Amino acid sequence: MRDFTNDHSALALNTASLGHNLEGKGAGWSPEQVIDACAARGFGGIVFWRREIGGRAIEIGNQARAAGLEVVGLCRSPFLVGPMAPKGRAAVMDDFCASIDMAAGLQAKVLTIVVGGVEPGSKGVGESLKLVADRVAEAAPYAAARGVKLALEPLNPVYAGNRSCLTTTRDALDICDAIGAPNVGVAIDVYHVWWDTDLARQLARAGERIYGYHLCDWLADTQDVLLDRGMMGDGVADLRAIRAQIEAAGYDGACEVELFSAGNWWQRRPDDVLDVMVERFRSIC
Amino acid sequence: MRDFTNDHSALALNTASLGHNLEGKGAGWSPEQVIDACAARGFGGIVFWRREIGGRAIEIGNQARAAGLEVVGLCRSPFLVGPMAPKGRAAVMDDFCASIDMAAGLQAKVLTIVVGGVEPGSKGVGESLKLVADRVAEAAPYAAARGVKLALEPLNPVYAGNRSCLTTTRDALDICDAIGAPNVGVAIDVYHVWWDTDLARQLARAGERIYGYHLCDWLADTQDVLLDRGMMGDGVADLRAIRAQIEAAGYDGACEVELFSAGNWWQRRPDDVLDVMVERFRSIC
Repeated sequence: MRDFTNDHSALALNTASLGHNLEGKGAGWSPEQVIDACAARGFGGIVFWRREIGGRAIEIGNQARAAGLEVVGLCRSPFLVGPMAPKGRAAVMDDFCASIDMAAGLQAKVLTIVVGGVEPGSKGVGESLKLVADRVAEAAPYAAARGVKLALEPLNPVYAGNRSCLTTTRDALDICDAIGAPNVGVAIDVYHVWWDTDLARQLARAGERIYGYHLCDWLADTQDVLLDRGMMGDGVADLRAIRAQIEAAGYDGACEVELFSAGNWWQRRPDDVLDVMVERFRSIC
Repeated sequence: MRDFTNDHSALALNTASLGHNLEGKGAGWSPEQVIDACAARGFGGIVFWRREIGGRAIEIGNQARAAGLEVVGLCRSPFLVGPMAPKGRAAVMDDFCASIDMAAGLQAKVLTIVVGGVEPGSKGVGESLKLVADRVAEAAPYAAARGVKLALEPLNPVYAGNRSCLTTTRDALDICDAIGAPNVGVAIDVYHVWWDTDLARQLARAGERIYGYHLCDWLADTQDVLLDRGMMGDGVADLRAIRAQIEAAGYDGACEVELFSAGNWWQRRPDDVLDVMVERFRSIC
């Protein structure tokens, strides 16, 4: 297991952690400001959201690399199914391909896929998961041709209705197995999977298909399942144990802090948040 | 699979569905009023909460049976671990035994156990689940001597921090296996398990250890994970499929409607809610 005590070069910032992903939240820093602040603190990587990038993917990707940051990933695909997905298969696939194009422009290693909830008209998650597998399988060669890996991210089951019918690492790997493409894997976010007693077994099964590792913490008394994530160490997830399992499976990539926290961390100065993040990463994660 | 189209004798009311379990919610009906309203509509059973019963367990149990209702269960044990549990093992076990005594007084067939969240000072769910197994094992003979079955209820993982480190049917059965007592089984609430693709396999594994089956629905766009449950048919859970699996495992007991709905159903006239429940049970479940 890697020792981060005196080395946070594996630390990556997901820009949402500064409130950038929702209008009116956070300090409103530009991508350039975030890049500079991360580089100044020795972060190793950065993950952007599509809304920040617009038509400037190539430019911003190059700026990040010039500052010494790896562009670890891009958030995210459109919802592929469910009530919040673009209407109709063609619209979904068009936007899916657009997100792949942006990841390619950024030279981001990974595009994260949040699959969406239960497809309207169906019950349970079964039919929706089949649609997800079908749509990811269709997009996989397009992504491979552009050097982009696709990471299926299981979300906490609380989101199964509207945001992610994909809730477990087991289900994500089942889809990967069904697709069998060399550029389709999983992203593991501790917030979503910390409760799963089957996680260790599934991570071992995943092996080299772990394309991303996301950090924050689950607050025992969480007030909002979307926007009340905790800073590492403030919650009840066993972060060290999960990282040990991730690394035992072969993962040696970035550890990406993704901290949606409208009531707490997004209210603070971004410089302070980044400083705390570095300290917690070294001491807790 | 049982046909409920013209027969709702398997329908049981969990009194929380009328808002009784929280002060200031619902119509404030007495247990007697609820018993009469259920009996008048041909419900087969009823499930009470401890706060309604006070010192009148024997009296209320007898009244329910005299009205033709089975006392299907009692909600619930104290939290056995976690931040909301009574402080200290002795206090937990005292209250656990008191809840068993009340179930025995009611002649309720089952006491539901909601296990509580992550034990303070620990990380992840592992240590807490061990404590749960230990405490249920200790109480099992006490319950058996009083004719009470103990049903471990897995809750949606969104509650894992504070209300239930037990989140899956698999984990619940693992605890049952570890304890090996003839009166320790599981309660399956569609609200908590509908997303789980491993459910069918686990229900088959459970067999006769399924002590309870709870109905409501998961609203795709749920507004509150505690108090915004849907009426059967209004959500995305595949109720028929889950019941088919439950019954294939051998379950032929009551189907208990447990509908926490502060903003909708608790605002309506209890008589209307019960009428809708009967109609939905026959047509949807």
